[in-house]
Amino acid sequence: MANKGLLVVLSGPSGTGKGTVLKALLARCENVRLSISATTRAPRPGEADGREYYFMTREKFTQTAAAGGMLESAEYCGNFYGTPAAPVERWREQGLDVVLEIETVGGAQVQRKRPDAVGIFILPPSLRELARRLRGRATEPEAAVERRLAAARTEIRRAKEYGYVVVNDSVERAADEIRAILTAEKDRVERNPQMIERILTE
Amino acid sequence: MANKGLLVVLSGPSGTGKGTVLKALLARCENVRLSISATTRAPRPGEADGREYYFMTREKFTQTAAAGGMLESAEYCGNFYGTPAAPVERWREQGLDVVLEIETVGGAQVQRKRPDAVGIFILPPSLRELARRLRGRATEPEAAVERRLAAARTEIRRAKEYGYVVVNDSVERAADEIRAILTAEKDRVERNPQMIERILTE
Repeated sequence: MANKGLLVVLSGPSGTGKGTVLKALLARCENVRLSISATTRAPRPGEADGREYYFMTREKFTQTAAAGGMLESAEYCGNFYGTPAAPVERWREQGLDVVLEIETVGGAQVQRKRPDAVGIFILPPSLRELARRLRGRATEPEAAVERRLAAARTEIRRAKEYGYVVVNDSVERAADEIRAILTAEKDRVERNPQMIERILTE
Repeated sequence: MANKGLLVVLSGPSGTGKGTVLKALLARCENVRLSISATTRAPRPGEADGREYYFMTREKFTQTAAAGGMLESAEYCGNFYGTPAAPVERWREQGLDVVLEIETVGGAQVQRKRPDAVGIFILPPSLRELARRLRGRATEPEAAVERRLAAARTEIRRAKEYGYVVVNDSVERAADEIRAILTAEKDRVERNPQMIERILTE
């Protein structure tokens, strides 16, 4: 099918294993791309423009956002972060599905701007398991873990704004479920408006 | 997940290969069941009650329908045909997905009664291909093929009343897509109302 690719908004609290699930998804689906964010912060050693981020001046960023060229944006620690629409749309025009891995506030912005976006929220099996995973990292003091757990509660409350919820109790199963969601979404009748007419007239 | 199974309405004009796709789906998914219709016509040799059909008296059928116990029903050649709700619901309570293979008028009845039903319409790749398949059967005179093609056009016009359209250009791919649809539907946020609360409170 020569249809446009999907715009997928993927969210989930830190510690749910979003990154690992995404890696498994990309390994399964060659037509899925991960969107690259823009930022006004300076590149760190080893970061390349257009790979980790699109690095932008504040002027370029604010102009792009003002012109409606950001699918979502926010200020964080004095820097702007956002998702430029143009590269996402270029990929979609090529039939590629583009995944935006973002937090729920940005996710809500995207879904408001693009009602055809597919929202997927990755849930931990339980908060207890999430706490276990966060503490298992052992790189953070307990206070930071507690802050993350509080943030996770806030994020999870917004899960109902997403079309789908996927529990990450197994990375393989979660990735399979997301792949199934992408396959199913492409078969939705409202995404195939010309198909019925084409078959009737051809 | 201990969720109720899905109610799936599967339609598509005769000659689209619905039956073959369904067989491939049942081979893939052990938790899928095919609904059994009820009829007031007499059993034919070799047919067993509860296997090909639930054979009912006219009195039993009309009473069941009047009591709201039929998901859809119609009269055809002087006999009643319909889908009894009770066995469907029993399977669903066991977590099994139940597929109703019915034409579009019955399909619309079911979707009106059960808005949570998943509607899937199987399309032929083209009307030309459908004609080729129908003529390939070579068991019917050309006039009958023409009647089927006209009926197919009418059915296909109702495809937009279904949630999903699946083109049967390959039986394996069509069955895979339907399996993906069932997997995705179970992850829809509105089918998991307690999940978010459970994770937050557990």
